[in-house]
Amino acid sequence: MDDQNRFRGVIAPVLTPFREDGKPDVQRLVSHAHWLLDNGCTALAPFGTTSEANSLSLDERMALLEGLIEGGIEPTLLMPGTGLCAIGDVVRLTKHALMHGCRGVLVLPPFYYKGVSDNGIFAHFRGVMDGVADDRLRVYLYHIPPVAQVGFSVDLVARLIDAYPKQVVGLKDSSGDWSNTKALIKAFPGFDVFSGSELTLLDNLRTGGVGCISATANVNPSGLRAIFDDCQSDVVGDLQASASAIRRFIEAYPVIPFLKAIVAAERDDPQWAATRPPLVPMPEITARSAIGDLRNQIGFKGAGMRAA
Amino acid sequence: MDDQNRFRGVIAPVLTPFREDGKPDVQRLVSHAHWLLDNGCTALAPFGTTSEANSLSLDERMALLEGLIEGGIEPTLLMPGTGLCAIGDVVRLTKHALMHGCRGVLVLPPFYYKGVSDNGIFAHFRGVMDGVADDRLRVYLYHIPPVAQVGFSVDLVARLIDAYPKQVVGLKDSSGDWSNTKALIKAFPGFDVFSGSELTLLDNLRTGGVGCISATANVNPSGLRAIFDDCQSDVVGDLQASASAIRRFIEAYPVIPFLKAIVAAERDDPQWAATRPPLVPMPEITARSAIGDLRNQIGFKGAGMRAA
Repeated sequence: MDDQNRFRGVIAPVLTPFREDGKPDVQRLVSHAHWLLDNGCTALAPFGTTSEANSLSLDERMALLEGLIEGGIEPTLLMPGTGLCAIGDVVRLTKHALMHGCRGVLVLPPFYYKGVSDNGIFAHFRGVMDGVADDRLRVYLYHIPPVAQVGFSVDLVARLIDAYPKQVVGLKDSSGDWSNTKALIKAFPGFDVFSGSELTLLDNLRTGGVGCISATANVNPSGLRAIFDDCQSDVVGDLQASASAIRRFIEAYPVIPFLKAIVAAERDDPQWAATRPPLVPMPEITARSAIGDLRNQIGFKGAGMRAA
Repeated sequence: MDDQNRFRGVIAPVLTPFREDGKPDVQRLVSHAHWLLDNGCTALAPFGTTSEANSLSLDERMALLEGLIEGGIEPTLLMPGTGLCAIGDVVRLTKHALMHGCRGVLVLPPFYYKGVSDNGIFAHFRGVMDGVADDRLRVYLYHIPPVAQVGFSVDLVARLIDAYPKQVVGLKDSSGDWSNTKALIKAFPGFDVFSGSELTLLDNLRTGGVGCISATANVNPSGLRAIFDDCQSDVVGDLQASASAIRRFIEAYPVIPFLKAIVAAERDDPQWAATRPPLVPMPEITARSAIGDLRNQIGFKGAGMRAA
């Protein structure tokens, strides 16, 4: 894959809206996806943790991906999450993504069994590679130990890159541990490491990383994009400080329900606040007060979604 | 459901054998299931943690369940695991199990997101109940925090029983914490609490529980059944001590690979030792030595599978 085709910059793990009947809402999703790309995101990673992907059935995920593409989202800008516990399911979702022209997939390790060995996770990925068996496959490893509990050690990443140099091209590090992100960037030149949060976006870019895939890109894509675009400029420190303040405020609440509440408020569309179990929506009164503080005290300008 | 129809006694979460090509092996599974029922198990719980169920695709699980029934296993003796992270998937597997005459299902909480609220887990189960919408539904809650990380608090169990008294009829407690099992038994008379291990089988029965659903029932069903049958007798202490010694020895190793190695040795069928990633088989030399010690030092008599 030449540099032209690589993902970099600011990628949003797209929130998944639900309708009143609890079903995923493809119209709202398409509209939000267009808004994200129009307002700073360089690409989209639907079906991540922020997307409540593991609360969707396989069929729902595939239907939503098709809906995004039918809705006019360029498939080469999509890096859908396809990682699940069963190799067969990962293969099915990954083949579907490739068939629809997605340029890469973001893949969780199998996350049910805990304390599994690197050998076991490696064998899982070998099963995925053998099952997909497609030269176009580009895998971004999804390292999120606070949620998945199972993750990718630096040694395991090295083994996977050695075994599948053409396929295993990058990683999203949502460990929350900058020293881990830095170690990965330093250890594997040419391997595309994304921070899982914009808190370390500037550090990431200055160290040789390629950007961030961050939940908060759902509401502050332009703020994150400014850091990416101006990372050599004098003002980037201020841009980073401002984005970080917004991020820190948001992550003090349950992040996914809060982000959905912000989108609901911005769009004046209460249905956007709906989550799927086991997540629960933020109580309206908490949301109203928190959004007020975010605007008045943290300086969040609003995402301008209503105009979109 | 009258007492005649309730599950009780010794239930094996049936190991899932794999063929050389990595696919689930329905023939070996059926043979093992018959052997378990012929040698002490009162019922079977396929597709539990021990069954590597979360490493199987939905289609594989449904095909194996049909295979068991076509292979002559009475569906009323089956309590398949149907718990997954997405409500739609749980509904699909549960409807399939009911359609095939299974008398109950063992249901994990949604296990991807961590630190979720009781409200969120309750809403997940409400979604399952509404989606299945079948009077025959009998749910056994599967509490296994060491693996799932998400579990059922006593409060949540109370709420679920209150809301669905006919459907939510029991629980498997694999917390490894006897005080929790005891609290559940005491709190909910008429609610069927199984220990997740035979280490507390006698305690369970004497306190008002109904038995155990234990991984090691795969290799020692008769030893466990003896405790259940003779729980009022003078010798039951010895029976419990003997079963516990075997259990403790086995659980000092990676349990699932070791159980598969024991079955492989008992049946003289090395293919039985195969696991699916992320689990890895026990090295043959370790298995041989550990099985030798289990026989010679712990007094494991062998399960007599070869004759079956």
